Amino acid sequence: MDKKYRLSVAEDAAGLGLVGGFKVAGVACDIRGNGDMSRLDMALIVSDKLSSAAGVFTTNDVKAAPVLVDISHLEQSEKIKAVVANSGNANASTGARGIEDALKECALVAEKLSVKPEQVLVCSTGRIGEFLPMEKISDGIGKACGGLSSSPEQSEAAARAIMTSDTRPKTVLAEVCVKEKCFKIAGMAKGAGMIEPNMATMLAFIASDAKISQPLLKQILRFCVNKTFNRITVDGDMSTNDTVISLCNGESEVEIDADADAQEAFKEALLAVCRSLARKIVGDGEKITKVVEVKVEGARDEEQAEKICRAIGNSLLVKSSWYGCDPNWGRLADAAGYARTGLNPDKLDIFYDNVPVLKGGCPLSEYKEQWRDIVKRKNFTVTLNLNLGNASESILAADLTEGYVNFNKGE
Amino acid sequence: MDKKYRLSVAEDAAGLGLVGGFKVAGVACDIRGNGDMSRLDMALIVSDKLSSAAGVFTTNDVKAAPVLVDISHLEQSEKIKAVVANSGNANASTGARGIEDALKECALVAEKLSVKPEQVLVCSTGRIGEFLPMEKISDGIGKACGGLSSSPEQSEAAARAIMTSDTRPKTVLAEVCVKEKCFKIAGMAKGAGMIEPNMATMLAFIASDAKISQPLLKQILRFCVNKTFNRITVDGDMSTNDTVISLCNGESEVEIDADADAQEAFKEALLAVCRSLARKIVGDGEKITKVVEVKVEGARDEEQAEKICRAIGNSLLVKSSWYGCDPNWGRLADAAGYARTGLNPDKLDIFYDNVPVLKGGCPLSEYKEQWRDIVKRKNFTVTLNLNLGNASESILAADLTEGYVNFNKGE
Repeated sequence: MDKKYRLSVAEDAAGLGLVGGFKVAGVACDIRGNGDMSRLDMALIVSDKLSSAAGVFTTNDVKAAPVLVDISHLEQSEKIKAVVANSGNANASTGARGIEDALKECALVAEKLSVKPEQVLVCSTGRIGEFLPMEKISDGIGKACGGLSSSPEQSEAAARAIMTSDTRPKTVLAEVCVKEKCFKIAGMAKGAGMIEPNMATMLAFIASDAKISQPLLKQILRFCVNKTFNRITVDGDMSTNDTVISLCNGESEVEIDADADAQEAFKEALLAVCRSLARKIVGDGEKITKVVEVKVEGARDEEQAEKICRAIGNSLLVKSSWYGCDPNWGRLADAAGYARTGLNPDKLDIFYDNVPVLKGGCPLSEYKEQWRDIVKRKNFTVTLNLNLGNASESILAADLTEGYVNFNKGE
Repeated sequence: MDKKYRLSVAEDAAGLGLVGGFKVAGVACDIRGNGDMSRLDMALIVSDKLSSAAGVFTTNDVKAAPVLVDISHLEQSEKIKAVVANSGNANASTGARGIEDALKECALVAEKLSVKPEQVLVCSTGRIGEFLPMEKISDGIGKACGGLSSSPEQSEAAARAIMTSDTRPKTVLAEVCVKEKCFKIAGMAKGAGMIEPNMATMLAFIASDAKISQPLLKQILRFCVNKTFNRITVDGDMSTNDTVISLCNGESEVEIDADADAQEAFKEALLAVCRSLARKIVGDGEKITKVVEVKVEGARDEEQAEKICRAIGNSLLVKSSWYGCDPNWGRLADAAGYARTGLNPDKLDIFYDNVPVLKGGCPLSEYKEQWRDIVKRKNFTVTLNLNLGNASESILAADLTEGYVNFNKGE
C-alpha cells in the first residue's frame, strides 16, 4: 500500500530557523557568573505569527518556577509568540521570587516583541536553589532579540545555548510532503544529564510551519512524548524542569486538522523528530558506554510490559552488568520479577538480540559465547517474551558506569 | 511508667545454639566447586522439639525453588524441626529440577532427624541458573547432622556458612525476662550484597525458646520484618531468594499468647533482633561508605511517607552525592517530588540531622558550612517534613560508590 505522503528526516540538521516563519538566536550572558562570555546560555525562538502551542511538562510534585508559569500561560493563551530558555540556572526551589523572575522574563520578551506576556513561554535548566541573575537575563534577552535570524548558524547557536552537561547539541529536521504540499518540523533538545552538579533536566523545543489547531497539537504531542521521551532512562531520576514545547505557526498553509492523510503525516513526522531527539539524549547520557533497547513482548497488557521494561532499565545490577559486558541474564529475570506484574517464570523466554538465553524459564547455556559477543557491543537488544498475551513495549536504557558515580558525586 | 519486662540485646553475639533446645552446625562441602574446603557453605539449625514456625519471603514474581518449597511446607505443617541453608548456589531459575533438588534436601535432613520432609525448610543463596551439586549437598547434610552443637563456635560457624559477599557474619542475641521468667531470641543473617556475581539475596534466621502459637508468630514476624528488613535499601533490587524464618520451640515455658505483657515483650525483642540484623546488612552493603537514615515526617499517611523515603533512598543522584559528601538538598527535593504523592513544595522543610536546609520551600544557605560537616560523616539523618499531616516513616539507605559499579560489573 502506498503511503499518501513522503517523509525525510535529516539527523543533526540544526534547523528551527529553517522552518517557515521562525527566527532564533543563541547568545551568551554569563548566567553561570564565571565571566565566561564564550559559553552560550540563552536561546530565543520567535514565530513571525502567533503559533498554536502545546507543552508536556514534568509530573514531579516539585515543579520549577518556569514550568508553573508555562502551564499557566498555556491555559490563558492558545497562541504563543516566543519561547526563551536559559542554561546555568534552573530557577527551581526558588519560591515566590522564582515565579516573579520567570514572569518578568516573559514580560521582557513580550515587550520587545509587542505581544502579551502570556504569549511567551520560558524554560530554565541548571543549578537549583539559586535566584536568576535578572540583570544578566535582561541583557541576554535584549541581545537575543537583536540577533534573531533564520540562519543555520543561529539555529545551532540556540541548540548549544541550552546545553548543560551535554557533550554535543541535539537537533533534527523533518520534511514532509502531502499531495505536493510540504511542511517542516524541526527540533532541538538538551539531555537528561546531571547539571553542574544538580538536576537531570530534559528540554526539547519543536517548531513546525504546519497549520494545526491547539487541541489536536496537544493530543498528538502527548502521544509522541509518551512513546519517545518517556521511554528512555539514564538514571531513573525525573527533574523538576522537564519540558517539551511545540509551536506550529501555519506558515506552510498545510492544514492538518481537516485532512486524514496530512494528520497521519504530521503524527509520523513529529514521532520521528521526538524519537530522534530522545535517542540523542540517552546516547549522550553522562559517562555512559552503552545504550540497550529493552523489549517486553507477549505481555497481558501494555502496562505490564512497561513496568517490566522500567524495572530492568532502572536496575543498578542490570546496568552495572551491561557496563561490564557480562551476559548476566539472571539479573534480567530478577528485575522482571520484582516489577510484580504477575509474570509466570515458567513461561519466560529471554533473548540477547535474536539469540535465546532462557526458554520457558530454563537457561540455554550452549549459546553462552554468542551472548558474550552481543553484550560487548555498544548497542544491543534485550527481549523478554512473557508468553501471556499480545501486548509489547520497549525502552532505551543506558548502562551505569564508575564515571557516572564520579561525575555525580559532587563537591 | 514501668515496663513489665526487661530486655537486653547483645550485638554480634552468635547464639542460635545458646537458645534453649536448639543445636546448630556450620560446615564446608565445596558447593562453589573450587575445592576450597576451608570455606563454610552449609548451615543447619535444628530444634530438639518441633517448633512453631513462620516465614516471610520475597514478593518477586520469580521465586527460587527453595522459596516455593518453604511456602508449601509451611502450608502443610505448622511445626518445623529444622532449617538447612547453603551459600554458593541460589537454586534459582532452575525449573522443575530445582524444585526436585530442594525437596530432596528436605528429605535428606528429615531422614537423619526422623521427621517428615515437610517439617524441614530449605534456603539457598549464591549463583543462579545452575543446578545444585546434590552429591556435595548430601555429604554436607551428613556432616552437619553429625556436627550439631549448642556451642558459640558452631553458632558462629553457621552464621559464616551463609555468607556470600558479606565481609563479616551478622548475629544478635536478645534476652527477655517477664515476671521472673526469661526467654531468648537469637538471630543470624546474610546481607543484600551481590553474589558472585549474581543476585542480591537477604537471608535471616531467628530462633527463640518462647512458647507461641503459629498464627501469632506469623503476625508479629510480618510486622517486625516490615518495620526493619523492608526499610533498608542498598541498591533497590529485590532478590528471588529473600527469606526470613523464625522458629520458636517453647523450651523456656514462657507463654506468649495468653499474657499481654509477655506478648509486648516478645514483639519488642523480635523487633530489636530484626532491627539489629537489618542495620548490619545495610552497613555491610557492597562497597558502601555511608548509611543514611531517611525520615519523612508530617505526611498525610504512612504510604506517602514510605513512597518518598524509597524514592530518596533509591535515587542514584542522591546516593552519588552522599558518596561525594555533597550537601545537595536539591536532589532530595527532586526525588521527593517524583514519588508523586501530592506533596506541596511550598510547605516542604528539609534538615540534615537537626540543621535546617529548606523551610517552606526556600533554602537557608546561611547554614551551608554545617550541612557540609554533617554529610561528611559515615552516618547522618535526612529529615523531610511535608507539613501535611501526622504520619511518618523512615528507611536506612546506603550510598552509591564507584566500587559498587566496579564490583558488580561482572566478567
